[in-house]
Amino acid sequence: QTGFLPNVFKAMSHRPAEFRAFFAYYNAIMNKDTGRLSKADKELIIVATSVVNRCPYCVIAHGALHRIYSKQPALADQVIVNWKLADLSDRDLAMLEFALAVCRADNITEEHFQKLERHGFDREDAWDIGMISAFFAMSNRIAHFIDL
Amino acid sequence: QTGFLPNVFKAMSHRPAEFRAFFAYYNAIMNKDTGRLSKADKELIIVATSVVNRCPYCVIAHGALHRIYSKQPALADQVIVNWKLADLSDRDLAMLEFALAVCRADNITEEHFQKLERHGFDREDAWDIGMISAFFAMSNRIAHFIDL
Amino acid sequence: QTGFLPNVFKAMSHRPAEFRAFFAYYNAIMNKDTGRLSKADKELIIVATSVVNRCPYCVIAHGALHRIYSKQPALADQVIVNWKLADLSDRDLAMLEFALAVCRADNITEEHFQKLERHGFDREDAWDIGMISAFFAMSNRIAHFIDL
Amino acid sequence: QTGFLPNVFKAMSHRPAEFRAFFAYYNAIMNKDTGRLSKADKELIIVATSVVNRCPYCVIAHGALHRIYSKQPALADQVIVNWKLADLSDRDLAMLEFALAVCRADNITEEHFQKLERHGFDREDAWDIGMISAFFAMSNRIAHFIDL
Amino acid sequence: QTGFLPNVFKAMSHRPAEFRAFFAYYNAIMNKDTGRLSKADKELIIVATSVVNRCPYCVIAHGALHRIYSKQPALADQVIVNWKLADLSDRDLAMLEFALAVCRADNITEEHFQKLERHGFDREDAWDIGMISAFFAMSNRIAHFIDL
Amino acid sequence: QTGFLPNVFKAMSHRPAEFRAFFAYYNAIMNKDTGRLSKADKELIIVATSVVNRCPYCVIAHGALHRIYSKQPALADQVIVNWKLADLSDRDLAMLEFALAVCRADNITEEHFQKLERHGFDREDAWDIGMISAFFAMSNRIAHFIDL
Repeated sequence: QTGFLPNVFKAMSHRPAEFRAFFAYYNAIMNKDTGRLSKADKELIIVATSVVNRCPYCVIAHGALHRIYSKQPALADQVIVNWKLADLSDRDLAMLEFALAVCRADNITEEHFQKLERHGFDREDAWDIGMISAFFAMSNRIAHFIDL
Repeated sequence: QTGFLPNVFKAMSHRPAEFRAFFAYYNAIMNKDTGRLSKADKELIIVATSVVNRCPYCVIAHGALHRIYSKQPALADQVIVNWKLADLSDRDLAMLEFALAVCRADNITEEHFQKLERHGFDREDAWDIGMISAFFAMSNRIAHFIDL
Repeated sequence: QTGFLPNVFKAMSHRPAEFRAFFAYYNAIMNKDTGRLSKADKELIIVATSVVNRCPYCVIAHGALHRIYSKQPALADQVIVNWKLADLSDRDLAMLEFALAVCRADNITEEHFQKLERHGFDREDAWDIGMISAFFAMSNRIAHFIDL
Repeated sequence: QTGFLPNVFKAMSHRPAEFRAFFAYYNAIMNKDTGRLSKADKELIIVATSVVNRCPYCVIAHGALHRIYSKQPALADQVIVNWKLADLSDRDLAMLEFALAVCRADNITEEHFQKLERHGFDREDAWDIGMISAFFAMSNRIAHFIDL
Repeated sequence: QTGFLPNVFKAMSHRPAEFRAFFAYYNAIMNKDTGRLSKADKELIIVATSVVNRCPYCVIAHGALHRIYSKQPALADQVIVNWKLADLSDRDLAMLEFALAVCRADNITEEHFQKLERHGFDREDAWDIGMISAFFAMSNRIAHFIDL
Repeated sequence: QTGFLPNVFKAMSHRPAEFRAFFAYYNAIMNKDTGRLSKADKELIIVATSVVNRCPYCVIAHGALHRIYSKQPALADQVIVNWKLADLSDRDLAMLEFALAVCRADNITEEHFQKLERHGFDREDAWDIGMISAFFAMSNRIAHFIDL
């Protein structure tokens, strides 16, 4: 198989300590049980932010995962080109708006959290959205310099 | 004490699993023994990239660490305002140029690695520089949304 | 059917004179028999420039056409996220580089034409590439304000 | 004579089919009888958007036409440098604001149309403004690569 | 001594007429007795705008003066990295917001003046803030090309 | 008369000390007898940089002066829209390239001076070009906030 993950595994495998720490952190963020983010939500955040970071590996791999989890085959493609025009609920637009503010390293203010709250996301959810966006700000950049 | 680290500890402490994973990964990247990056080099990379991500906590805390490790009290301040005009060796300019290319999520090409090699950095060093830049792309963004 | 073209037809149909002139011009540019651009080349130019103009309708519709003509199912998706990292020949990179220079309204100089010539495109081909890019600079903008 | 149009005619004349289709479409958009846009309005839209596309031929030729139609000799020059500071009515500012949103390939929303309506432009006028802006997004780019 | 001012003096001294005119104008702006701007305010404006103009000499020299006048040792450093996150009063934020609008050559409107008035700055104070920002738009650029 | 200078005189007249210092500095820079810059050269620098600073008053007034001094009625208009496409000698392009680098607050390096030297400008001329660009970086910004 020649997909994304096997390549990342291979690229990072000669640094086993970093490799283990990377995936342990990935698991702590992505595979937690609590909160309001569905698996499809998490993948959509990764797709939208990885587009900004211009990482084809992440966009394509996580776009495929989004299609599987969401059962909406066209949505990820719309988000990839122009998320504001995609067929998203107001809740999902608010979620992506926050994720992209973190992605651009904007100053995050009380207003950001209040806007999320109006769409049903509490402070813990905001933390989850921001953490996924921040983690892929790192991962996308790693993908740019490791030999994929 | 009211500095950066105690605040980060406090902010992340209600998520102990993520907190441990974050610091384990931080240690894997920052405290490795091999390679050509001195402690001062690492802090300078953090300062230069955290400026781009507009994170005052990280810039000020790591600028102070750079002053301690480098014994060059004015250098970090110069890098903060305009790294290309700072009193840096060609080696250090090449190091920061690569770190900032990763920071901006530029496409990294063979040319980037060759330029580093001309200044004495091999592929493992390039990995170290890129990894610190990528890790702080994440950390700076986390600092923007956690309550510091 | 609810695809792109039926929607464009419907949106433009209440202005029959403009509608006919638009499609007559489209045909003059896209369906000419001469020159070195294959059907797949033309679709790839449309995909790459429509991404810059953030037009999801055009990107998705012409990405599908590219897949059909090129028989390369993954290429359009790579171009959508980061054309410089896509698995493209040097010829195709040169073609997209010129199309995107026109798309950004860059000043086009003798150097641009010479670079194309080094990859086998003569002045007539340059005209064709530029004309498709310019036509979709218009079409993408129309798509933003008509009711699709 | 060595003005803009003779040069465009000459440049496009070796492609007679494209040439005819271009001017047929130009006529369909620019010479329609209905709607609220005066000849001066249309020229002002062309001037303002051609500045963004950095096309000196179009700006100078259509600036001259604007002076003739509007009898306001200084207005086009003001618009060229800084349209928001020009001596324009609120209606004309709203018209240019919409034209420039289309010119930049912004997402056009219901709010854009409502703002135009508050200044007396209905949906058909919005279409006309947007179509002129889109047509010159194309023409300006063509002017960059044909030999003028 | 090898600080900023001795270097500027030296660099400009072979043009004595310009040198005298520069410092006469500097004095007219910086050393006037009237108005609501304290010495620390003026230095903070210089720091914030010189960061945008990427002038390390001015940022470091005037940051030091700000520390002396304000007795707030950490404030200038915060403003240097991200003025919106600095520990500033609403009044000081409004002052810097206006200074930075002038620094970026934004269109200044009645709204800008009204916002300043809500924080206690009248039109004369607005003039003073704008004039310092404009003067350092010049000085920072001079510093980039004279031999410091 | 209602032109630019009378308005500036009026706007600045209630601050006579600043007014005198501004014009004394203007004279020291613009009316010096030595060097290779003609009156037309100086006006062209002002036009090109004032466009970047979006100052219609300065662009229009100094464009008119350029037409008088240069006897080239169309050149300023070309420079206003797209200086790289204007009918300029290589010497004039080099002059404007340096002026615009200073205007953008770019880092000025030895290479900039060497490029100017290849077109016949020595270090004193570079100083003159840079000083005019820097002075109008200030003047254009003043024009944005005084009541013209």
